[in-house]
Amino acid sequence: MADKRIMLAHGDGGALTHRLVQELFLRHFPHPTLHGLTDGALLPQPNGPMVMSTDSFVVNPIFFPGGDIGKLAVAGTVNDVAVSGARPLYLSVGFILEEGLLINELDQVVHSLAQAAEAAGVAVVAGDTKVVEKGHGDGIYINSTGIGVLPVGRDFGYHRIAPGDVILINGFVGDHGLAILSKRAGLTFDTPVQSDCAPLNGLIETLLERVPEATSAVKFMRDPTRGGVATTLKEIALSTGRDIYLDESSLPLREEVQGAAELLGLDPLYLANEGKVLVVVSPEAAEAVLAIMGEHPLGRDGAIIGRVSEGTGQVYLRTPLGGHRILDMLAGDPLPRIC
Amino acid sequence: MADKRIMLAHGDGGALTHRLVQELFLRHFPHPTLHGLTDGALLPQPNGPMVMSTDSFVVNPIFFPGGDIGKLAVAGTVNDVAVSGARPLYLSVGFILEEGLLINELDQVVHSLAQAAEAAGVAVVAGDTKVVEKGHGDGIYINSTGIGVLPVGRDFGYHRIAPGDVILINGFVGDHGLAILSKRAGLTFDTPVQSDCAPLNGLIETLLERVPEATSAVKFMRDPTRGGVATTLKEIALSTGRDIYLDESSLPLREEVQGAAELLGLDPLYLANEGKVLVVVSPEAAEAVLAIMGEHPLGRDGAIIGRVSEGTGQVYLRTPLGGHRILDMLAGDPLPRIC
Repeated sequence: MADKRIMLAHGDGGALTHRLVQELFLRHFPHPTLHGLTDGALLPQPNGPMVMSTDSFVVNPIFFPGGDIGKLAVAGTVNDVAVSGARPLYLSVGFILEEGLLINELDQVVHSLAQAAEAAGVAVVAGDTKVVEKGHGDGIYINSTGIGVLPVGRDFGYHRIAPGDVILINGFVGDHGLAILSKRAGLTFDTPVQSDCAPLNGLIETLLERVPEATSAVKFMRDPTRGGVATTLKEIALSTGRDIYLDESSLPLREEVQGAAELLGLDPLYLANEGKVLVVVSPEAAEAVLAIMGEHPLGRDGAIIGRVSEGTGQVYLRTPLGGHRILDMLAGDPLPRIC
Repeated sequence: MADKRIMLAHGDGGALTHRLVQELFLRHFPHPTLHGLTDGALLPQPNGPMVMSTDSFVVNPIFFPGGDIGKLAVAGTVNDVAVSGARPLYLSVGFILEEGLLINELDQVVHSLAQAAEAAGVAVVAGDTKVVEKGHGDGIYINSTGIGVLPVGRDFGYHRIAPGDVILINGFVGDHGLAILSKRAGLTFDTPVQSDCAPLNGLIETLLERVPEATSAVKFMRDPTRGGVATTLKEIALSTGRDIYLDESSLPLREEVQGAAELLGLDPLYLANEGKVLVVVSPEAAEAVLAIMGEHPLGRDGAIIGRVSEGTGQVYLRTPLGGHRILDMLAGDPLPRIC
């Protein structure tokens, strides 16, 4: 099967589609509702309000240092559900395959997707596969849609952000974007930069369960993916009408990412992250959140990086020399297909 | 805006993405959770078990007689949820756009998607947009994922199908597939064949609410999309281990579809439908179901087309001359990108 390729007939809903589902997809996904091969997955009544989130993944290349499009499809959607404060439970996955794709590569991606889902504790319960002609896709595109349940008392959102609140991040910025872009540019490093791609629901649950009075101390969470930390902070500033001061010297940034970003003419603040969360907390709770974050494997390099103040929706970067630079949303040179 | 086109930067998560969401998508979708622009849609706790279904749409061409990819993305997923017996409530939509797409065309598709969702009574609550380089997509691909709630007492599935059960369909077969393929082949007809693309949740709710003791009389429903009526029946036969006898002379088939299918060398039994449902019912209930179906605008041309018997998983087509032909799943010449 190693050199077999996806054909158009794998997507026509007939005998070959049936075989692909039976022999490849079902092998990786254990959830019984999938094996029923009905049109919809039957799921028990959730015990609270739900959060639903969707994301399509078109990352190029499909395989990159630190992950692949399958792992990314789990991390991206699980994180979108988790930053709402909900516990992600179920995922659907929709594949758009390009004719000629090696079935072996598809198998690797599905394997990695299934492993990431298992590690995150979410069940893949529904799926779909389409095939497009060679030259109308690019190997594999994946949509993943997630459902989570919001535990009682959790209410995070722009409306809770107030002047004085403190902004934390759980580690180094720009790793994912840089891993993708440097692989595309053919750059090699002594210490290769790995994507940070990871489901964050475990870290987030740890914070919300262990921080004293977390439901009032934690105000808002968001994963700074496309557009990077700068764009996400600008969205927060615009949506709240507050200003945000970001402290450049406290921003966790790997030396090799900084170096490579300079080489490529990129600003790490605008590079995508796929395993990072910005957490806005009340000032009294900041140190406690940071300490608990630091005990989790995905939060070891966490830091307090900024503060919210009264204002007009601006984001200011405080440079080490004491100056200020205004940060806007990503604009200009596009960074296409980063996720 | 009429001649403006999608650029890569519309997908980079920065300023242009933000504008596209604000100026195009939010204009069409009223649900307040979307306007919050958070990463996940907050939805109330459903009052029963849920059904989740996902489908990606890559139909070519995007606009076709009787619909477009936007309407199709609603119909396809709503129908997958509804045939499970659930009431579809929420949809997420993920767009993969090709660089160079006319924004005007995107606007038409989103308009049509929003209209179809409103007509079907489902709320679009979450969305995502990605852009791929020219030559790595084909205008617009859409993933839609649906959530519905299963009312108490409804339990439809392969396990309920028994010998003697009767198979109904709510109207003409093959219209969608033929509308797409004849448009692609550049065929024109005196009476153009329109896609049957329509959300069926209204029809299905009517049956389940008006047929006496519907929850026991109705055994199983499935929408015969990709692969057509023949492939869907074969899947039912294989999954139940029963035989199915399909009666060719009672199959609703438009003369123009039959004619065009012959011209194109296609069998209407293998052509996709996007507004049809196969309903397996107990023999006593068949006439009552047919009568109530016939009163609904989407069931006027409904018919009893076959019967389940003991067997080994075969599907037999009884021809008007009294012969039998074995029907298998669609195989051989693929019918690509039909939905």
